[in-house]
Amino acid sequence: MDKEYVKELTNIEEDFAQWYTDIVLKAELADYTDTKGCIAIKPYGYAIWENIQKYTDDLFKKAGVKNVYFPILIPESLLQKEKDHVEGFAPEVAMVTEAGGEPLEEKLVVRPTSETMFSTLYSKWISSWRDLPVVYNQWCNVLRWEKETRPFLRSREFLWQEGHTIHATEKEARERTIQMLEIYAQVVEDLLAIPVLKGEKTPSEKFAGAENTYTIETLMHDGRALQSGTSHYFGQNFTKPFNIKFQNKEGKEEYGYQTSWGISTRLLGGVIMAHGDDRGLKLPPKVAPIQIVIVPVAAHKEGVVEKATELKNELEEKFRVELDLRDNYSTGYKFNYWELRGVPVRIEIGPRDIENEQCVVVRRDTLEKQVVKLDELSKKIEELLKEIQKHMYDECVERVKRKTTTATNMEEFEKNLKENQGYVKAMWCGDEACEDKIKELTGAKSRCIPFEQEHISDKCVCCGKPATTMVYWGRQY
Amino acid sequence: MDKEYVKELTNIEEDFAQWYTDIVLKAELADYTDTKGCIAIKPYGYAIWENIQKYTDDLFKKAGVKNVYFPILIPESLLQKEKDHVEGFAPEVAMVTEAGGEPLEEKLVVRPTSETMFSTLYSKWISSWRDLPVVYNQWCNVLRWEKETRPFLRSREFLWQEGHTIHATEKEARERTIQMLEIYAQVVEDLLAIPVLKGEKTPSEKFAGAENTYTIETLMHDGRALQSGTSHYFGQNFTKPFNIKFQNKEGKEEYGYQTSWGISTRLLGGVIMAHGDDRGLKLPPKVAPIQIVIVPVAAHKEGVVEKATELKNELEEKFRVELDLRDNYSTGYKFNYWELRGVPVRIEIGPRDIENEQCVVVRRDTLEKQVVKLDELSKKIEELLKEIQKHMYDECVERVKRKTTTATNMEEFEKNLKENQGYVKAMWCGDEACEDKIKELTGAKSRCIPFEQEHISDKCVCCGKPATTMVYWGRQY
Repeated sequence: MDKEYVKELTNIEEDFAQWYTDIVLKAELADYTDTKGCIAIKPYGYAIWENIQKYTDDLFKKAGVKNVYFPILIPESLLQKEKDHVEGFAPEVAMVTEAGGEPLEEKLVVRPTSETMFSTLYSKWISSWRDLPVVYNQWCNVLRWEKETRPFLRSREFLWQEGHTIHATEKEARERTIQMLEIYAQVVEDLLAIPVLKGEKTPSEKFAGAENTYTIETLMHDGRALQSGTSHYFGQNFTKPFNIKFQNKEGKEEYGYQTSWGISTRLLGGVIMAHGDDRGLKLPPKVAPIQIVIVPVAAHKEGVVEKATELKNELEEKFRVELDLRDNYSTGYKFNYWELRGVPVRIEIGPRDIENEQCVVVRRDTLEKQVVKLDELSKKIEELLKEIQKHMYDECVERVKRKTTTATNMEEFEKNLKENQGYVKAMWCGDEACEDKIKELTGAKSRCIPFEQEHISDKCVCCGKPATTMVYWGRQY
Repeated sequence: MDKEYVKELTNIEEDFAQWYTDIVLKAELADYTDTKGCIAIKPYGYAIWENIQKYTDDLFKKAGVKNVYFPILIPESLLQKEKDHVEGFAPEVAMVTEAGGEPLEEKLVVRPTSETMFSTLYSKWISSWRDLPVVYNQWCNVLRWEKETRPFLRSREFLWQEGHTIHATEKEARERTIQMLEIYAQVVEDLLAIPVLKGEKTPSEKFAGAENTYTIETLMHDGRALQSGTSHYFGQNFTKPFNIKFQNKEGKEEYGYQTSWGISTRLLGGVIMAHGDDRGLKLPPKVAPIQIVIVPVAAHKEGVVEKATELKNELEEKFRVELDLRDNYSTGYKFNYWELRGVPVRIEIGPRDIENEQCVVVRRDTLEKQVVKLDELSKKIEELLKEIQKHMYDECVERVKRKTTTATNMEEFEKNLKENQGYVKAMWCGDEACEDKIKELTGAKSRCIPFEQEHISDKCVCCGKPATTMVYWGRQY
């Protein structure tokens, strides 16, 4: 039975895209629905999102962020107030055109993002420097009518948080932009055990209406990059058309300085693709809904279920534990079942273990087994979970190293990308035409202009003209 | 300045409806938006909702509820599968008819509730008794295109949770229906300090498509009732049209038994209207985002701000505390400001207090002042918050007693309702015609058939025919 179960999962190296879909469905993270392009997030997937939310929201609250909830429907005329913004989002919005059995006088956009709604309300509420800064966030659903969709990665509806702030000075707004990016980096690195690359998007990759867009990029198993969180500085691009003015300390009227920032359920796709392997999902202990699964061996023997239950009760005080007492599955089937679901630690306990006051502890990340004395179990597990979290992070760091190359000309660029997948570091002149050409030749886009710059050569990798910055390039999700 | 501030608030006895709107806006719980009928929930209002969510979700998890997230858009054809359901909801749905710049082939309903979406997915996932029960819930937004709207009480978009379950037996499903109603009763009584009346809705007041609808009803300041949470037993009304079948232990196919249950941001309206007074909002300590506000007196004097800050840091370990150091408002203004916002306890501390190692503690509910020694403050506050919570609950119990009468004929019914507002207890024959007539004569609807029945007379209060049950009647929000 075991083998079959694993066999059902597509080989990760053979067909990564199908492997991904397999994991989503078989680990019961989500399922397709009758609403095309929209998924149902199932309990196991949603529990991961809840852990991300909790961790992030705690950091937000420490950073002075206040949660709110604003309408999902936005009058079409509001969306049109900022030129770049409407150009960017109009092609992918869903529209409510009738309600209560009647056609609406003005169409209502289902929010693809809420800059326009927040800006409209801010213009009403803000009048003095004393009202600033305003640092509001909402956890909500948004809709973007994508042509091609994939569970978590590109879904027509997804869950996210969107923070929107107004500040009295450019300096403060810029600082907030970076502060929130740093929080996202912490969420992804510390909670999800995925190292991030921090930097600024090139102008062509900016958010519609932003002055600057900052990003954290992560590298997946197959070497493609995933944009995992973004933070935008708007300057006065929205505060002017939306008339968000305040009286400064000198008594003069001024337009506010604005930011916005978001992470989404896309991160679940990141967790799957950064850590998974041929046996299935691999969850970092900190974010895993179930950190430990206890599988009794020869459960029909006297005392086994009792002892397993006792262990569960003990461990539950400190960890998130599941005890698998199902009587219609073999032990081997259960091992595979929980490996597929990426539970970080498995405990096996049978009659002989009980006799010897011990149990078998198996790590999901390395599949290493060890025998642990029961009176040391809780302490041992605590150490082990930390070790797994760290090891999973380190493995991803290794991958980034392995899959990052440098190039000084396009031949090298193409060769490296082909051989390594992953990131190519190369100099850029700042011209969008070179980005376009690189995209055309290699399929790679600029990921970001990293905060940590390196000097690789003097010339643009594409056109050979003098370079202004070093850019990370790569194929993306 | 003080008086003016209070004066701005409409007198609660003179114009309760306007008082309510004043509180919503002036206590900054919510504001109107450019999307007609939809409100923006501001940080202070949203923080109350977060506390309700947290408390409820903890109870849910203990009761085996698992959270999920399913699409907000439902193909129109799904809504139409259950006859009563579509009749009930079709008139008030909002429709997405175009997306991505093109008209949709099939219109998508913005969920007014998700029985149809859950049922469709359940039919796909459930096949054996081993899959049951399924007890899923989602915290989300829903839209109902109401003609007349009021912040929190009746908003076109609102936030809620909706639980949807499938069971192998009618008995288990019925037990779950009542179990969830009991959880709602606990939320409203224990957290929100509002006593509830538990009972079953009459057939004409049932949820569209349900066999039985159970409700918790609460009584507001003006004697009107607020339906505060409902739990529905569906029998097989949805499982048959949606084909939710399972193989039972005997190997036979059977349709599942279904329930659903929900509470919403409407509860915020309940908190406002059950507890508020002429000075504003009055929040029960358990749900108050700020439990204690510290207002320094003569803050410019040496050591006052320091001492107040010290107190804040100390109290913050156990309570949710705010320190009001604003220098552009008078102390009196601040007192009113925080009273309007319903903060349960105010601490005043000035130079003389510091000298005497004491402070002044003021209760929001009774406005009683007491001098408390600083070294006893934390303990004293803990007791006081409990006392306030209890006192606020008791006050509401008192109101229910005061405003509940019995009637054996319509003359008495009308007289009692006119004099007392509130609930009228009266016998009913079970005929909808009598409900309609009572509604027409008095404006009162049946609130529920309470679980705790009393025998008031043998005859229906309206038609005089033999009565089957005792019903609570009242005007409603």
